Amino acid sequence: MAESMKGLKRSHRCTEVTKAEIGSTVTLMGWVQKSRNKGGIVFVDLRDRSGIMQIIFENGDIDEQGFEKAGRLRSEFVIAVKGRVEARSGAVNPNLPTGEIEVRAIELRILSEAETPPFPIEENSKTRDEVRLKYRYLDLRRPDLQKNMMLRSQVSTLVRQFLAKEGFLEIETPTLIKSTPEGARDYLVPSRVHPGSFYALPQSPQIFKQLLMCSGYDRYFQIARCYRDEDLRADRQPEFTQIDMELSFVDVEDVLDVNERMLAFLFKEVLGVEVQLPIERMTWIDAMNRFGSDKPDLRFGMELTDVSEVVKDCEFAVFKGALENGGSVRGINAKGQGAMPRKKIDKLVEFAKGYGAKGLAYIAIGEDGTVKSSFAKFMKEEEMQALIQAMKGENGDLLLLAADKTKLVWDVLGALRLELAKQMDLLDKNEYRFVWITEFPLLEWSEEDERFTAMHHPFTMPMEEDLQYIDTEPGRVRAKAYDIVLNGNEIGGGSVRIFQDDVQEKMFEALGFTKEEAQKQFGFLLDAFKYGVPPHAGLAYGLDRLVMLMAKVDSIRDVIAFPKVKDASCLMSEAPDIVDEKQLEELGIAIVAQKEETTEE
Amino acid sequence: MAESMKGLKRSHRCTEVTKAEIGSTVTLMGWVQKSRNKGGIVFVDLRDRSGIMQIIFENGDIDEQGFEKAGRLRSEFVIAVKGRVEARSGAVNPNLPTGEIEVRAIELRILSEAETPPFPIEENSKTRDEVRLKYRYLDLRRPDLQKNMMLRSQVSTLVRQFLAKEGFLEIETPTLIKSTPEGARDYLVPSRVHPGSFYALPQSPQIFKQLLMCSGYDRYFQIARCYRDEDLRADRQPEFTQIDMELSFVDVEDVLDVNERMLAFLFKEVLGVEVQLPIERMTWIDAMNRFGSDKPDLRFGMELTDVSEVVKDCEFAVFKGALENGGSVRGINAKGQGAMPRKKIDKLVEFAKGYGAKGLAYIAIGEDGTVKSSFAKFMKEEEMQALIQAMKGENGDLLLLAADKTKLVWDVLGALRLELAKQMDLLDKNEYRFVWITEFPLLEWSEEDERFTAMHHPFTMPMEEDLQYIDTEPGRVRAKAYDIVLNGNEIGGGSVRIFQDDVQEKMFEALGFTKEEAQKQFGFLLDAFKYGVPPHAGLAYGLDRLVMLMAKVDSIRDVIAFPKVKDASCLMSEAPDIVDEKQLEELGIAIVAQKEETTEE
Repeated sequence: MAESMKGLKRSHRCTEVTKAEIGSTVTLMGWVQKSRNKGGIVFVDLRDRSGIMQIIFENGDIDEQGFEKAGRLRSEFVIAVKGRVEARSGAVNPNLPTGEIEVRAIELRILSEAETPPFPIEENSKTRDEVRLKYRYLDLRRPDLQKNMMLRSQVSTLVRQFLAKEGFLEIETPTLIKSTPEGARDYLVPSRVHPGSFYALPQSPQIFKQLLMCSGYDRYFQIARCYRDEDLRADRQPEFTQIDMELSFVDVEDVLDVNERMLAFLFKEVLGVEVQLPIERMTWIDAMNRFGSDKPDLRFGMELTDVSEVVKDCEFAVFKGALENGGSVRGINAKGQGAMPRKKIDKLVEFAKGYGAKGLAYIAIGEDGTVKSSFAKFMKEEEMQALIQAMKGENGDLLLLAADKTKLVWDVLGALRLELAKQMDLLDKNEYRFVWITEFPLLEWSEEDERFTAMHHPFTMPMEEDLQYIDTEPGRVRAKAYDIVLNGNEIGGGSVRIFQDDVQEKMFEALGFTKEEAQKQFGFLLDAFKYGVPPHAGLAYGLDRLVMLMAKVDSIRDVIAFPKVKDASCLMSEAPDIVDEKQLEELGIAIVAQKEETTEE
Repeated sequence: MAESMKGLKRSHRCTEVTKAEIGSTVTLMGWVQKSRNKGGIVFVDLRDRSGIMQIIFENGDIDEQGFEKAGRLRSEFVIAVKGRVEARSGAVNPNLPTGEIEVRAIELRILSEAETPPFPIEENSKTRDEVRLKYRYLDLRRPDLQKNMMLRSQVSTLVRQFLAKEGFLEIETPTLIKSTPEGARDYLVPSRVHPGSFYALPQSPQIFKQLLMCSGYDRYFQIARCYRDEDLRADRQPEFTQIDMELSFVDVEDVLDVNERMLAFLFKEVLGVEVQLPIERMTWIDAMNRFGSDKPDLRFGMELTDVSEVVKDCEFAVFKGALENGGSVRGINAKGQGAMPRKKIDKLVEFAKGYGAKGLAYIAIGEDGTVKSSFAKFMKEEEMQALIQAMKGENGDLLLLAADKTKLVWDVLGALRLELAKQMDLLDKNEYRFVWITEFPLLEWSEEDERFTAMHHPFTMPMEEDLQYIDTEPGRVRAKAYDIVLNGNEIGGGSVRIFQDDVQEKMFEALGFTKEEAQKQFGFLLDAFKYGVPPHAGLAYGLDRLVMLMAKVDSIRDVIAFPKVKDASCLMSEAPDIVDEKQLEELGIAIVAQKEETTEE
């Protein structure tokens, strides 16, 4: 059935053939996109990764047998065609790069026949995700996914090119490492040689890259596979890829500088987008106050306003209570949304409750200036007017207010702001707004653990000027940590690392670690630090998310060749799967009967 | 203790400062290689990854406090130095790139102090491997290891650059995959979400890269981490790195062509070595006959001679027996080794026995032409002379002969040839001899399984002209498989893949698989093949070994930043290690008490 390609050699990919080739003979190979017989002529759209070329089979140009074969062609057959390039006889197709030419076949081989695929191979597939993922090898034929994979490959290539030029060495770090209890849940790998012992797959190369700095490699990078055994969200995968880097003898500005030049290079080369440098810097506290988020989307305004001062004397219990508890009252102005139906507002209130708010107060200002408000009856007229004024409310605006502990108010209004932007269609995928968030808090209070935990990680350097507060007011200490945010997504983050014994010791104290605990958890890194350690800092990007934004798609699965679904399984290969008992025996492990408690989801 | 680098910015790495900078001020940062006080002047060799710069601290140039600090410097302290570049006041050091200049310090900061390291940081360390590996972060400071890591980084960068230009897309394939019982032993990863199920870490991206060809990606590559849970040999690691590629619409010649151009580019750019193209091609049978190995080292001759015909009528039972059993008698001529002492020859015999030989026959020809031989008494004078002539024996030569089944004879003499080359010092690490080995047997008989097994893998394409023998004489069928061999090391290998249903079916038959078994093991690849599959072929290199040869080192551990030792453990981090009981509970697995049988080594 399958013919050999012996004696034929592909001369071009489909869209590599141009008008300049008219009159010459080419050999193309690819998949039949579609095939139709019109008036005794067979027209075939031939597809390869470059695009489509129209092939004409006419008896006489091609021999009888070849013409007969052309008549049998169906979608997804793999063929080799030799033919003459001609100007298109029929209508020119301005949508195709090869729309002005076609190839008149003189030879045809059917290299591989194909069953009818379970869904058509075309852009913007409407097929169910489950089917697409089961037949991922077919889904990956679709031009939009191919474009994403090519873009991803290009991004990796350019990142590597840029970093190599900047003196970064690509160094591979191990992926069968030791499990550390800090951070997310590790994937474990049982050891056969040491039964009862386990490797862990790395959540990041963090410790190894810091060791490489101790070893004098000066500038390291790696596009590294990382692993987290967490319950998956839409934009998470059990294995993901980081652009990971670390630099010696640098401070915050050096890291930001090389990274924003890298981003500018990348966006220019791949998308033709000019990133204005320097990229805007915003402190964490400013980001929270203005946008209720440490990853603010700057493509639109709708900033938060702190109205605590304005409402501090009003009689509305919700506001009053929040302020008395040390919280705040803040709001956002949804411009032009004053006529939003009550039902829709109610949905926003529900949305806010999903983020922990007890409710959401609103003021709808009609086009005629009439004010409807959920809490008007508790407010004096002048209080209401002052509030509207503070929030720059105008006719036709909808003002939404939250009152609670400040952190909660930020979260609620930050999320609400994004939700409104979606509803108001303010998010343009072709606009790229970067911002550096800096001066993160070093520590955050964990209600669960009843202690401070590291906001980034325990090796993050405090800001020199705040070090004085580490014993007395640990929550006040800011860190030399930074995130790079693009369109409301944290695409990367990092920090300057502690390289001094005494600071590290203070940090562990603040985290409530004894010396022994610290040694147990981070022993070999602390040991390495005894032998001369340079000041160093680093940053890591989530490559998947970065590519997702560059490809302007909504799901991280659309930029990963063989992604897993929410339960961390692969619908195509059916991994994970049961294994032979013998394999487990060799590893010295056994499967235990499931207890109720362990099946919690 | 640790000073801040605030206000200082490194201007150069040590050896980036040249004579052109004489008179200007530079700021350098790095490690103290050594420090000595001579006549009230402190001389410091400052080291960074680029090399060494001599720093002069003299009171007056630097302030009192700075000079006092300089006096305290010890090996491996990390310092920042600002100073003026001057021509060397003392003796010029022609061994250093910076040997004609020095830096007269005007400012010094001690960024990090250091304890005395457990071994000196210098080239050609004589330190025990165990200590080096425990303190790998210090070992990695040694200039020879740093050179290796930089070379490795350069190799990866250049490979990617070359392949990107040739139209290869870098596509990441998953590493949490399904376990397949074929091949080496898998590392397993227990699934938490699906208790009782496991992922496997990939031994190679083989199936995924073939799927990508089915998906139309045309040319794929990846520098991919791979895993094999096998007992380690000197040149094996549990995780290793492959340069992996696959191409569509190609045959053997296309793969060889792009790869030898890549190798030539790489060796030219990295080592300045010109690789003559095309690289020599040798069929598998020629390689075995001439060198007793499918990875022949062509840096020296000492080829095998088949003397079966010559000795077929002699009375020596060993020769006779081998020939009667369908085996052969072959020998090598160790030129100029005729005077080898008997003891040394005995050692060679023992060496041969280690490869399964029952013995080794020899003929030592004295400088005066006298012949000593272990089997002279069984031979007629003219038979002996014919044998010597057939092996081109001359005065002063040592002829070594093995008689047994041909495969064993090849193995023994192939190994002996290498051993002699080592003893005779014929192996020059600066010489690079490449050869393609082609036309491997498709199948090899497994005594253990009592069936044919795939020599490469079950998807390897048979040569068209041999397909006729697949039912009747499966052992005669040659494959479209190829290895690239460098100085006796297989650095890469691959094959054209089967893409036709009927050929694949025949292959599975030859391997003794039922259709059901084939479907169970390779199901989703076979499914993918139903929907139109292009002819495709691929190749994979062992990056670690390639870099090892390019770096001219003997151990693969010297080109891996954080290698593991023979028991697959990391001496630095002590991975693998026991984990919390809670982690195992979450995974639904338990450690079972060790049975005797499972501890076999």
